Amino acid sequence: MTIQMFEKPLGMRDDFPFIAKKKAELRSSGTSIIQQAGYDLLQTPTLEYYETIGKISAIADNALFKLLDSQGETLVLRPDMTSPIARVAAAKLLKEKIPVRLGYYSNVFRAQKREGGRPAEFEQMGVELIGDDSIYADAEVILLAGNIIKKLGIESSRFVIGHTQLLQLILEDFGLNQEQIEQVHSAFVSKNSVGFETLAKQLPIEASRVESFIGLISTTTVEEWQQWIDPHNAKQSSLFEDMKKLKNILDRSGLADAVTYDLSFNSHMTYYTGLVFEVYATGSGFPLGNGGRYDGLMKQFGLEVGATGFGLRVDRLLELISAVSEQQEHTLILFDERNEEQADDEAQKLREQGARVTLQFAQSVLAIDEFSKHFSKVLRLEGAN
Amino acid sequence: MTIQMFEKPLGMRDDFPFIAKKKAELRSSGTSIIQQAGYDLLQTPTLEYYETIGKISAIADNALFKLLDSQGETLVLRPDMTSPIARVAAAKLLKEKIPVRLGYYSNVFRAQKREGGRPAEFEQMGVELIGDDSIYADAEVILLAGNIIKKLGIESSRFVIGHTQLLQLILEDFGLNQEQIEQVHSAFVSKNSVGFETLAKQLPIEASRVESFIGLISTTTVEEWQQWIDPHNAKQSSLFEDMKKLKNILDRSGLADAVTYDLSFNSHMTYYTGLVFEVYATGSGFPLGNGGRYDGLMKQFGLEVGATGFGLRVDRLLELISAVSEQQEHTLILFDERNEEQADDEAQKLREQGARVTLQFAQSVLAIDEFSKHFSKVLRLEGAN
Repeated sequence: MTIQMFEKPLGMRDDFPFIAKKKAELRSSGTSIIQQAGYDLLQTPTLEYYETIGKISAIADNALFKLLDSQGETLVLRPDMTSPIARVAAAKLLKEKIPVRLGYYSNVFRAQKREGGRPAEFEQMGVELIGDDSIYADAEVILLAGNIIKKLGIESSRFVIGHTQLLQLILEDFGLNQEQIEQVHSAFVSKNSVGFETLAKQLPIEASRVESFIGLISTTTVEEWQQWIDPHNAKQSSLFEDMKKLKNILDRSGLADAVTYDLSFNSHMTYYTGLVFEVYATGSGFPLGNGGRYDGLMKQFGLEVGATGFGLRVDRLLELISAVSEQQEHTLILFDERNEEQADDEAQKLREQGARVTLQFAQSVLAIDEFSKHFSKVLRLEGAN
Repeated sequence: MTIQMFEKPLGMRDDFPFIAKKKAELRSSGTSIIQQAGYDLLQTPTLEYYETIGKISAIADNALFKLLDSQGETLVLRPDMTSPIARVAAAKLLKEKIPVRLGYYSNVFRAQKREGGRPAEFEQMGVELIGDDSIYADAEVILLAGNIIKKLGIESSRFVIGHTQLLQLILEDFGLNQEQIEQVHSAFVSKNSVGFETLAKQLPIEASRVESFIGLISTTTVEEWQQWIDPHNAKQSSLFEDMKKLKNILDRSGLADAVTYDLSFNSHMTYYTGLVFEVYATGSGFPLGNGGRYDGLMKQFGLEVGATGFGLRVDRLLELISAVSEQQEHTLILFDERNEEQADDEAQKLREQGARVTLQFAQSVLAIDEFSKHFSKVLRLEGAN
């Protein structure tokens, strides 16, 4: 393959000025909401050891960008931000600061095998709330995700909420072993209800309970979940009570009609261990972001605390928002040698008033008329003195 | 080598919240000054082809992070921003938009061979002014670099300005061939005047001109440069006239005492072809940034135009500035189950007024007193209703 001089690697993109500006605005308002909610911003390095972050991350091994350092160690370009933040939290954070709230706005990397329009590098904005096992922590991150989306001007969003642990307990109650549970998860991920019914009949489930089992794929409210909760099972009851509390909080926050409680919803992120969610813009097929509880991940770094969080996809948010600021005024001052000083003074004066000003030596412009069209105002000082 | 769970690759750093916040402020004010001066922001991908950006970049090959993509092509983590911006400008920009002003704030990568405190990833903020051959373009980027530094609150900075093309013409006038000129460059870079005098006596320079030659290493003003300018050489005279114009502009802008015109100053960046500069904070041994004219680089992308620009090192700026904003007020609201709704209302009210508020379920906190110390105000709503 011959690389052309202007080519970029598979899945790599340039952000042209219009997008770069929109992104800067999105970054600024998003991180400001995150900080206002009490989260501190953190930035971790682009490269991490494969042995630590690469292996722990929920991203498939063949989607990792790997390279060797000068010591022969394998490095990866960070595939997500949750594992690096867990590393920092476990290494540096003091117990008396727990629960700790950390936020980020960072690019992450996923190697693409072929040209398919999927980005190999994209930006995520999100938070991790580490060391709080309560349902209030789960509620906080869901509401914060919704709040960011709303404040960015995306009026209508929808949440899908599931619970990996509760689902696991319910599937165990149906007498399924782990291998069968994995089959059920796959059917849930593909959202194929016909396939799920077929699977249900093949599994060793009591005939009287097959219909109930099939119902697992189509829940939309917390109330519907109750039919699978064993009131004598303390863990199930406690998790279900938490889900009712969560629903109350979300209802109160104006999300009553914006949430689907889907017991069959399961994230592809393998490290989630409790409540999981995705958020969509109404009418959009791709999630704007996702999140959930990942109590197990912290353990891998030797910290025995629960954690929850979310990440939003900046590229998908960008598609839905218009630039926050109006097209700014932009003045062009054209000068020649005789009035360079005057032009400079004028530009400084305007800039001090907040104006955006391009100061340009007229003789360096190839096509004055065409060039001038890109400005809202043109001052031509040639021959002025 | 066994990688410990918390280790990061050589030269890789975490930005903890205090630094991350300072950096966000620096990014925001720096890019806003850049845009006010008429530059559009651009963001290029982290990974580029070695064949295009890697080979063209002025960074030594062994300082490049290289990896293979799924097609077996060699990729590099971008080692600088000038070459990627040249790639974009050459590929996408229309002739009628020239001169074009592009700005960036980006991380760049330099592989480190051993632990020496040098970062393998650091951020740069800078501009490229493409398609303007005039000395006014050189003046504009120098003044913009100085302006950013000043507006960040670094009161006192110094510039060192040289001119690679003028130096080349003068060295040729002394009868030196290219190999000898390279020897002179090396002596200039090491700033060893004793070594330079020894070299001067070994070079085939007329005896009567050796003293004059030795003087090349110790210039500080443009006026001193004149002694080596051949008035009958049109190119030399024209470049020298430009230097005098530049000096006038910089003097007028209040930099009369802040610039050293050092004819022996030469950047290690091999692509520079004209005026070159470095900027220092007074009393600091490391440059805050550097820049200059690189007319040759654009040619490699098939665009026959001149270009100039600069890049500032964000890590070095950060060391010199205090956080722009005061330590913000941060309120902690502790609640329990009975008053969760009241706490939520209170937090929302305060946040709407612009306050930073952490809302925390009290039972999830391990050490309430220690935890509370990190906030400027604590509202404890437990048992309040």
